[in-house]
Amino acid sequence: MTTAEAFQRARRPEQKLQRRDAILGAARELARRHGVRTVSLAGIAAEVGIHKSALLRYFETREQIFLELTAEAWRDWIRALHAGLDTASPGSASPGSAALVADVFARAFADRPLFCDLLAHTPLNLERNVSPEAVRHYKLTSLGAVDEAAALVARVLPALRMAEAREFVATLASLAGSLWQIANPAPALAELYASDPALAQACVDLAPRLRRTAEILLAGLQAAGGQGQSS
Amino acid sequence: MTTAEAFQRARRPEQKLQRRDAILGAARELARRHGVRTVSLAGIAAEVGIHKSALLRYFETREQIFLELTAEAWRDWIRALHAGLDTASPGSASPGSAALVADVFARAFADRPLFCDLLAHTPLNLERNVSPEAVRHYKLTSLGAVDEAAALVARVLPALRMAEAREFVATLASLAGSLWQIANPAPALAELYASDPALAQACVDLAPRLRRTAEILLAGLQAAGGQGQSS
Repeated sequence: MTTAEAFQRARRPEQKLQRRDAILGAARELARRHGVRTVSLAGIAAEVGIHKSALLRYFETREQIFLELTAEAWRDWIRALHAGLDTASPGSASPGSAALVADVFARAFADRPLFCDLLAHTPLNLERNVSPEAVRHYKLTSLGAVDEAAALVARVLPALRMAEAREFVATLASLAGSLWQIANPAPALAELYASDPALAQACVDLAPRLRRTAEILLAGLQAAGGQGQSS
Repeated sequence: MTTAEAFQRARRPEQKLQRRDAILGAARELARRHGVRTVSLAGIAAEVGIHKSALLRYFETREQIFLELTAEAWRDWIRALHAGLDTASPGSASPGSAALVADVFARAFADRPLFCDLLAHTPLNLERNVSPEAVRHYKLTSLGAVDEAAALVARVLPALRMAEAREFVATLASLAGSLWQIANPAPALAELYASDPALAQACVDLAPRLRRTAEILLAGLQAAGGQGQSS
């Protein structure tokens, strides 16, 4: 070990936490700027100004860093749902309540582009290159967030059972991930969309598309629930 | 150029087509066996038994090969929809017709694991590393398939307008891609699901989940359409 490395290594617990936060912060900024798929472990280390080997004392892999950012993003997203729905009164099957839920969810996703980008990468890449303990920790966070979000939905729309509210939340989260990718094409593809009317319908505007799909899902779940109750 | 390379190079048009098919076939088999994300250009070349440089005479990039396989998969999927729906009589808003449409679509996706895997990779990776001409060609195929599938849906369920039927098809295709990834976790994650009851609800069984979501979407679209007509 060289003297420089010995000097740079964080020794005290609070130094270690600071270093950890700096790594997460660098990964967050790079991913926001250039997209999750382009960010490498070496790129994160360079942004923090440390060696890749030093970074690996804090995180197992690039994927673990992003899985931690995804867990953080679920918690932030839940706060936005609470802010939008906590004061709403239970509206039974009224269209106004479903429209409010759809709008709050659509904005909670669309206002968080990094969260949406991460959601598409999670099952595809992030959960595949980390230890069982890291993925277990992540899964408990994401399942907890889905449950908490579903409880909010079921409170505002009492016609829905918890299982149906959970279906709504999980389906919309999957869609938010894939639709964000479609809504944010590579520059060459965006140019193609703009220049070719035959391709115009392939464009997606994220917030209105999510809001509309959320409304359809809620209407469908309420119709299916109603059928189930009457039979 | 060595004599061996000159000998191996396909000269006649039918030889070139054979070589092209062999490359696509090798990529298809590797992706089916190990998943799209793990297959590299070098791996495909090794499977065909040619040099990577020889492969690049036929395809621009790894992504172009997989985009071509995705286009082929859309056409194969459309044939399955025709087989399942061409003989169905228009059923207006009857629940039986919607259940049939949901079932045919769910099976058309779930019976085609490579198609589902490719659908998740398309906006994330495949459309980002090919020429504008290649992505344009692909997009026209996929948009054409969505339109053709939507026309089948609108014929069996005349209560839906074409735009609504297109929404149904595009939403279900996005979900098929992301749900397939969740339904097919890495071995370490699958083990974790099996061993930890707290994570059991994170498991997804693809065909029933797609069938159920298709039914919800169709019920929601029909409810929304009915509201639109009555107002």
